[in-house]
Amino acid sequence: MKRIGRAAASVAIIATGAATAASAGPGGMLGFAPASAEAERALEARFDAGLSADAMRERLRLMSAEPNQVGSPHDKANAEYTLAQFRAWGWDAHIEVFSVLYPTPKAEALELVGAHPFSARLTEPPIPGDDSSARQAGGLAAYVAYGGDGDVTAPLIYMNYGMPADYDALRRLGLDVKGKIVIARYGAGWRGLKPKLAQEHGAVGCIIYSDPADDGYGAGDAYPKGAFRPEQGVQRGSVQDIPVESGDPLTPGYGAVEGAPRIPLTQAKTILKIPTLPISWGDAQHFLAALDGPVAPKGWRGALPLTYHVGGAGASAHILVQSNWDQKPLYDVIAVMKGAREPDQWVVRGNHRDGWVFGAQDPLSGQISLMEEAKSIGALARTGWRPARTLVYASWDGEEPGLLGSTEWAETHAKDLQSKAVVYINTDGNNRGLISAETSYSLRRLLDETTGAVTDPETSVSVRDRALAAIQVRALAADATPDLKARARIARDGGDLPAGDLGSGSDYTPFVQHLGIASINLGYAGEGQSGGVYHSAYDTFEHFSRFSDPGFAYSVTLAKTVGRLVLRAADADLAPFQFSDLAATVAGETDDLKKLVTSEREHALAVDRLLDRHAFALADDPTIRSGPPEREEVAPEIDFAPLDAALARLKAGAAAYDRAAAGQIAGDKAARADLILQGVEQSLTDPQGLPGRPWYRHLIYAPGLLTGYGAKTLPGIREAIEGRRWAEARAYIRRTASALDAVTAKLDAARATIMQ
Amino acid sequence: MKRIGRAAASVAIIATGAATAASAGPGGMLGFAPASAEAERALEARFDAGLSADAMRERLRLMSAEPNQVGSPHDKANAEYTLAQFRAWGWDAHIEVFSVLYPTPKAEALELVGAHPFSARLTEPPIPGDDSSARQAGGLAAYVAYGGDGDVTAPLIYMNYGMPADYDALRRLGLDVKGKIVIARYGAGWRGLKPKLAQEHGAVGCIIYSDPADDGYGAGDAYPKGAFRPEQGVQRGSVQDIPVESGDPLTPGYGAVEGAPRIPLTQAKTILKIPTLPISWGDAQHFLAALDGPVAPKGWRGALPLTYHVGGAGASAHILVQSNWDQKPLYDVIAVMKGAREPDQWVVRGNHRDGWVFGAQDPLSGQISLMEEAKSIGALARTGWRPARTLVYASWDGEEPGLLGSTEWAETHAKDLQSKAVVYINTDGNNRGLISAETSYSLRRLLDETTGAVTDPETSVSVRDRALAAIQVRALAADATPDLKARARIARDGGDLPAGDLGSGSDYTPFVQHLGIASINLGYAGEGQSGGVYHSAYDTFEHFSRFSDPGFAYSVTLAKTVGRLVLRAADADLAPFQFSDLAATVAGETDDLKKLVTSEREHALAVDRLLDRHAFALADDPTIRSGPPEREEVAPEIDFAPLDAALARLKAGAAAYDRAAAGQIAGDKAARADLILQGVEQSLTDPQGLPGRPWYRHLIYAPGLLTGYGAKTLPGIREAIEGRRWAEARAYIRRTASALDAVTAKLDAARATIMQ
Repeated sequence: MKRIGRAAASVAIIATGAATAASAGPGGMLGFAPASAEAERALEARFDAGLSADAMRERLRLMSAEPNQVGSPHDKANAEYTLAQFRAWGWDAHIEVFSVLYPTPKAEALELVGAHPFSARLTEPPIPGDDSSARQAGGLAAYVAYGGDGDVTAPLIYMNYGMPADYDALRRLGLDVKGKIVIARYGAGWRGLKPKLAQEHGAVGCIIYSDPADDGYGAGDAYPKGAFRPEQGVQRGSVQDIPVESGDPLTPGYGAVEGAPRIPLTQAKTILKIPTLPISWGDAQHFLAALDGPVAPKGWRGALPLTYHVGGAGASAHILVQSNWDQKPLYDVIAVMKGAREPDQWVVRGNHRDGWVFGAQDPLSGQISLMEEAKSIGALARTGWRPARTLVYASWDGEEPGLLGSTEWAETHAKDLQSKAVVYINTDGNNRGLISAETSYSLRRLLDETTGAVTDPETSVSVRDRALAAIQVRALAADATPDLKARARIARDGGDLPAGDLGSGSDYTPFVQHLGIASINLGYAGEGQSGGVYHSAYDTFEHFSRFSDPGFAYSVTLAKTVGRLVLRAADADLAPFQFSDLAATVAGETDDLKKLVTSEREHALAVDRLLDRHAFALADDPTIRSGPPEREEVAPEIDFAPLDAALARLKAGAAAYDRAAAGQIAGDKAARADLILQGVEQSLTDPQGLPGRPWYRHLIYAPGLLTGYGAKTLPGIREAIEGRRWAEARAYIRRTASALDAVTAKLDAARATIMQ
Repeated sequence: MKRIGRAAASVAIIATGAATAASAGPGGMLGFAPASAEAERALEARFDAGLSADAMRERLRLMSAEPNQVGSPHDKANAEYTLAQFRAWGWDAHIEVFSVLYPTPKAEALELVGAHPFSARLTEPPIPGDDSSARQAGGLAAYVAYGGDGDVTAPLIYMNYGMPADYDALRRLGLDVKGKIVIARYGAGWRGLKPKLAQEHGAVGCIIYSDPADDGYGAGDAYPKGAFRPEQGVQRGSVQDIPVESGDPLTPGYGAVEGAPRIPLTQAKTILKIPTLPISWGDAQHFLAALDGPVAPKGWRGALPLTYHVGGAGASAHILVQSNWDQKPLYDVIAVMKGAREPDQWVVRGNHRDGWVFGAQDPLSGQISLMEEAKSIGALARTGWRPARTLVYASWDGEEPGLLGSTEWAETHAKDLQSKAVVYINTDGNNRGLISAETSYSLRRLLDETTGAVTDPETSVSVRDRALAAIQVRALAADATPDLKARARIARDGGDLPAGDLGSGSDYTPFVQHLGIASINLGYAGEGQSGGVYHSAYDTFEHFSRFSDPGFAYSVTLAKTVGRLVLRAADADLAPFQFSDLAATVAGETDDLKKLVTSEREHALAVDRLLDRHAFALADDPTIRSGPPEREEVAPEIDFAPLDAALARLKAGAAAYDRAAAGQIAGDKAARADLILQGVEQSLTDPQGLPGRPWYRHLIYAPGLLTGYGAKTLPGIREAIEGRRWAEARAYIRRTASALDAVTAKLDAARATIMQ
């Protein structure tokens, strides 16, 4: 599901200084004594030798041969194939079945009504040269999951990306969406926010289309000449309200196992109400060309050969969506290899298996690497090697509609996971390109070392060094953001690879956001061009092997990278956490929040002053009004002292722990420290969760309520400030400070243990 | 010729503090004693009463009835009509004739050759509802003036805007334009730079087209539904190398009067060599669709429904251009009203009369205001009033091909102008919207007071206050530039209206840049939509009166504004200069230059470091290389001390003069001070001129050699730094310091005179 953009573009700021508090020096290996590190490197070489690009290519061809959505015969066949493979490779594997609410389309229609009627095609015709695209039998009509049922005819209004800022602009134009059908383009935020905001503003239907400016010929030649979205290409997807909670909407917070209670459909919080359809630009241009009213504001205009108008009066559309609101089975394949030394310390690794149609890139290009890792680890095990900690490999089902397979499994096994899981490592498709990763801050050093040990197949330097080069080169651009420049300074100064923050959009969410398991999400991206067929019937073996990773070299590279993460996390003498990065990064984010309060205050005061002087009315063209903004509440002083104090304690505690851990601790002491450290990320969660979404418990990173996939750091505080809820901001400053103090206490305890 | 963009968007930084050194307090009038100011206000009310929107509408209808290019019968008829009107209004008027080289098209063709041949239409068909557009007989084929003759067939290559940065990007892609025909879109810089840079890089032909992203349906509905450039709309224009010098290419630096020597055509510095044609997007899309090679870089993509490729190999074009290289007559209409008190102090006011076709907006919408001013001033004179200083009104011919009429007249009368002209006031078309102005810094206060005295017809506040509101509102935008924010601070803090800097593109150039006459260029802009038909056959009375200024209210407002500028400059007891703005603004620009040196140095060092580490190669996609940049010479220390010292002296001298002048000086003292101050702007010029372009002598503002219309402040220093010519930068620091010292000396002398 997760759409990875330009590689390394999602990586965010981490503060410097961490490099000086390294737990392992250059050439060292975090958590390993020197002799263990040497053995581990030898093991990794043997692991690498077990990887085959050809095997992965053939696995992808097989698994992407037919439509793979939840409930499809081929998705089940792939589960059984995966199970059989895991077992053949020596793993203790089984299929765990859940039953979830998964709506599928029963009837849909979309028409322009009036003088020049037009019926949207809503289908993706086969593409010459792409045999897979002709095998859509057994697949579903293009749709979005968890939108509402409905049959309405209403005026059509263009809403740009359908994000909050667009509603502000519309209000200033003196227009609204009440009683209308919104047409919005993909981009600028989570798909599900578009119908959600539309219905909150009173719209009765929603159309989402792919504008060629963002996704199509504006980006590059359309498929099949090039890799990009063709005229009839449709982006399917979920519109479940994932920023509120993920998983089966009828079993919130607990596993959707047989016999578990289901809440009534009407009480489900994450199902939207208005009928919503995704369409191609080939369909959309007929609707957009029919709009009148004001010319769309400058930032609203796409690349279709027409003048974009906002509409709202002249043109009307008819939208019909009816779904089967049935329970469907999910098949999670779980494979376990028991740890020899610390069997109750789990290293969990997952990638989903279900796709919107064939899903060659999303998700199977990640799935084939996961399986190749399991194959090679199985071969190592046949030589007598055993991981020190227990490995749990998972092939998730039902990720696309709402992280269903991972969420239901994580909720079902919450207790075990919270007491045993050391780390969750996620992938979700792969491409040719640069490493792109988001991590818990305590895992930044592990990621840095691991990516430093994997060679990029195109440049023969480490994938880490290539990413560091790219960050610095991009930061030279005239339009580089302050964030990017800050990351480039870290890259220049030898800090850990500046990874991104965990938001949502893939299966790590229930682990890190809900349960507080330290997590890493990664993949290669930026050069393979699978984005052009994202969530369409053209995400096929043919497209992937032509445009995304033709030699499957990055499939091998991904397996090498994740294999190292898994093996090091499993075999380290002491669990491979480093905490100075955590302290420095949260300190940096706290500084950002202080600046945010100041800039919000200054902006509100400036708007006030200009409203008092009628400046917006004076600046406006009376014939094309853009209207005044609303007055904003001026931010009061916000006291960050509790957080600052907790950060100072954390900084000292983290530095002390990291120094102590650098003493190459092993044996009993390490095992006892592991028991303390295993749950340390959980100290960063709050049992009450975030405001309005208690399922999300992490106080340091969450998907933004109004951004969706995109992470908000220190979300309880940040979203309160953005929403001008000052008491809430102060409350979350205190909660976050307490969480940091809990981490510090654990670090002190772990340090005491290993210093004994 | 000058394309005025969004109003007030071109205004640049002036430093604050000037407000505190005001020569006249609130309600005061710069240069006037209180009693004189009262009389002047009464005069202005009478002047306003003489203005008629209806008269201007009918004048526009008459003057734009037929094509008006240089040498056309209707251009000459308009000259004779203008002369007769001036005389009827009581002015001492005559026509001054020059003979200039003005090439006109004899033959032109443009074809796509190869498998799918296409012949460009190169014509603008009549538009339904626009009767003028059907009266093109007597006009010229769409072309650009002063390009080369040629008949070549060569591979076609797309160059984006054809600006220097685009050539850098092309080089990094491993491509070049040698032996090829460049196709570039309009925008991002002066039209003439596109073929000039193409020929400098070895191209053999050049096509310039209007992309709908910048100019067409991407901006708004196309004509006739809306105001914007239709499918076959062509932007004509000059490609004379105006940043080197303007005027007749065969009489550089002297007037093109009868009997003056002409240099051979081959020695003319401002005529380009390669054949160049302007085309519509309707024609261009056939050429762009035929291109192959790399997909164009992101910033290169326009709004046509195709994937933009760079080309360079697969598609070829044939271009043919042959011109008549004849001498043509120019008819400048000059009208004089002698000053009663100081007849040898001239206030010069001009607008051109020639258009590319009908020229309703450009230039006649400014011309009708100029004539309405002359009419109303004539009526005042019939009541016995006389201006204190002499008024010189000019209706220029031949502006479009290269500021020919104004330049030849200014060169012919250089000696008189330099000893008598106090100010030159220019307009060049007008629109509904906000005041947009560029001024000599010593005229900022005059502009501020004058615009504060004119009421905006849409909002009923002064046009000044409306512009100040707009600047502050725009500065609230998230993407506001530091420049815009600085201007907003000036607006907020009560500084003089932050006007822009004088570059080129209209008739003020020979006056301010070549002769050193203090100048103002102004117009209303930003709401009228004449830009969509700029320099096309659709710039008609019909289009103007429907989209640009339907009620002609801004024609009246322009006449009120310029009339006040003219009358105040003519009648002030002491010439209305204020110099604190000059000192503060140049100080601000000097600070900018220091920052430029630092940022250039940091950039060069960063590029060096990344090249040393092969970072660009590592960051590149090996299948779509964008290539490394070239190493840049690292800027050494540049000593700005001479300039800083001169600025300190100027600041003190200006403050002292402004304080002294605020004492409401009149009579003999004022007349003697006027004699000193009349030439003060000339002290800012250097007889050697700017590097490589001695015709341009002003050391404070010039059109950029590589931007064209756009101004470069402190150009001798700035362009040397940008070009990494450090010795030249140091030399121009010294020259500029000397110029400022010369100003300070004159201010001291003037102050001494009025303090006697």
